[in-house]
Amino acid sequence: MYKTLLQTNMQKAIKLARTSGYDLPVGCFILDSNDNIIAQATNEVQKNNNVTNHAEMLAINKATKKLNTKYLNNCKMYVTLEPCPMCAWAIILARIDTVYFGAYDSNYGAFLSKYDLRKSINSKLKVYGGICEDDCISLIKDYFKNLRD
Amino acid sequence: MYKTLLQTNMQKAIKLARTSGYDLPVGCFILDSNDNIIAQATNEVQKNNNVTNHAEMLAINKATKKLNTKYLNNCKMYVTLEPCPMCAWAIILARIDTVYFGAYDSNYGAFLSKYDLRKSINSKLKVYGGICEDDCISLIKDYFKNLRD
Repeated sequence: MYKTLLQTNMQKAIKLARTSGYDLPVGCFILDSNDNIIAQATNEVQKNNNVTNHAEMLAINKATKKLNTKYLNNCKMYVTLEPCPMCAWAIILARIDTVYFGAYDSNYGAFLSKYDLRKSINSKLKVYGGICEDDCISLIKDYFKNLRD
Repeated sequence: MYKTLLQTNMQKAIKLARTSGYDLPVGCFILDSNDNIIAQATNEVQKNNNVTNHAEMLAINKATKKLNTKYLNNCKMYVTLEPCPMCAWAIILARIDTVYFGAYDSNYGAFLSKYDLRKSINSKLKVYGGICEDDCISLIKDYFKNLRD
């Protein structure tokens, strides 16, 4: 099957998400303007006993430290699940250029599903959803199925 | 002048905000169910070169570590400025019981002004705004005035 660059990258994020352990499987990485991965993270809420430790927040913190700058202009984020309002606002504040996400989140998705938080701040952030959507939905469904089994 | 408990506590948060240095002056603390302060923080975005380091995020992280629990049930937060969407969602995720804030934020306030993020998640979080509002507005106004001078 021919895969676009977006799909190849999202498969990397999916592979990462599968290392989330007991946590909801979410994988996220950030590329700099040369398409080098400068930060990656999984959801670590259970692992670190901290509700703010979503994959996107951890990745932003890592990228910020790595580049020693609070703004991530020209950087792109790949994440398997549509960001919640906390992460969406952090992404906007960090001035990330583009977000590519996999599964839409009709309950809490804060870019294209439940809200579009970009509107209130005239953000120029570009957001594309539904990349490798089926695989990203399966990640979440399998997690909850295993919880019940 | 007679001060209510809410006003006395908000004055503590204002005093804290005044220690923010070069950062936008925001002060925040969290009380446990016995009204003991378990965490406090100022806005440290400039200090730490990290856009996610709002006072509320730092206070939640500290409280979470202190209590060794990811949920802050029965805890109250005092903060001088209405939380942004990032902080508001973190507060909701952390299951804080009540938030008391000072100045409303008509641009980005995510509880009572621009949004009410509680609605999408049926949160039971109670939020009261406008406590010592004039003093809290002055904090922000003075900061920007000094920046211009």
